[in-house]
Amino acid sequence: MKEGKKERLESQVDFIVAIDQLKEVNRRSCLVSEERLENSAEHSWHVAVLAIVLSEYADVSLDLCKVVQMLLIHDIVEIEAGDTYAYDPAGKEDQFKRECLAAEHIFWLLPSDQKERFTDLWHEFEDGETLESQFAEAMDRLMPLLHNYYTAGRSWKKHGISPDQVRGRFAILKKNFRGLGRYVNALIEDSIRRGYFP
Amino acid sequence: MKEGKKERLESQVDFIVAIDQLKEVNRRSCLVSEERLENSAEHSWHVAVLAIVLSEYADVSLDLCKVVQMLLIHDIVEIEAGDTYAYDPAGKEDQFKRECLAAEHIFWLLPSDQKERFTDLWHEFEDGETLESQFAEAMDRLMPLLHNYYTAGRSWKKHGISPDQVRGRFAILKKNFRGLGRYVNALIEDSIRRGYFP
Repeated sequence: MKEGKKERLESQVDFIVAIDQLKEVNRRSCLVSEERLENSAEHSWHVAVLAIVLSEYADVSLDLCKVVQMLLIHDIVEIEAGDTYAYDPAGKEDQFKRECLAAEHIFWLLPSDQKERFTDLWHEFEDGETLESQFAEAMDRLMPLLHNYYTAGRSWKKHGISPDQVRGRFAILKKNFRGLGRYVNALIEDSIRRGYFP
Repeated sequence: MKEGKKERLESQVDFIVAIDQLKEVNRRSCLVSEERLENSAEHSWHVAVLAIVLSEYADVSLDLCKVVQMLLIHDIVEIEAGDTYAYDPAGKEDQFKRECLAAEHIFWLLPSDQKERFTDLWHEFEDGETLESQFAEAMDRLMPLLHNYYTAGRSWKKHGISPDQVRGRFAILKKNFRGLGRYVNALIEDSIRRGYFP
């Protein structure tokens, strides 16, 4: 290997080893089996597969490869910043600032071109201005809805979440993902009927 | 939503909910922190990110999007077939047969076009004839090597694995991934020096 290439590969491996810690960041949602809380690494896998399976529901064409890469790296900042619950206003307040700092630290391990690419991809997800980031975000919000639906509202009940709070998370579906929007509404209505909300 | 579309989306969600079980399939490798064994869902996430970061080391150009999708679904069959240890000759004997059956069962939940696409992708990975499947396989083998290296050979020691057994897993790097091959050899040599093998 040429001089310089070895260091490059070594910093890439340093990054890969560092992100192993995402497997130890717990989320508020639990497994469908209700055995334990889900962690952010396995969530990232699950939501990437969800995007592959549901990509046909975008009303306009999108770059699925980018969506998947975005979802695979979107939570890596939680290694340092922790998982912020979607319905935690106090945590939400400084979430972006904490996560920006974390992104700087963790992506800094990579060679500079990849550091830039990953940071850009993460910011694109956070900004939510492109179709790809909006679809990725929709998948990231749909997943805990499914987890709640299939565990009889376990995390909604535990944290006192209302149907309107959940509906508020899915306003993003109204423009380009209307089929999914109707599905989400039906799931929320059915959850109310079944008593899944506190 | 048009008639028929609802059923399609419901079977896609059934699949997504079913694969949640992959989070409860334990592998032999443990986290870098050594806190617990790693599960196959978080491993799938980790190895997909590894492929994105290291794709430049393929000596020929490859379809990264396909590699990533392959890695995200390659272990789903373990929900039914369990994880087979790389160095377990008895388990290896009927592994393919068990996993083929499992693939039929789990991908059967999907609408037929996606069932076919996922089954084909899984078989492509297993057959290892395309460049994409060979690179995906290389990532899948590199990950436990890294886990062993960074946990002082914990799983090698526990299961009595020799350097030659590990070298044998990386013959696949010789043709199209020579840079990675040299890196892997250096890691194995260094592991010997450091006493990471039993």
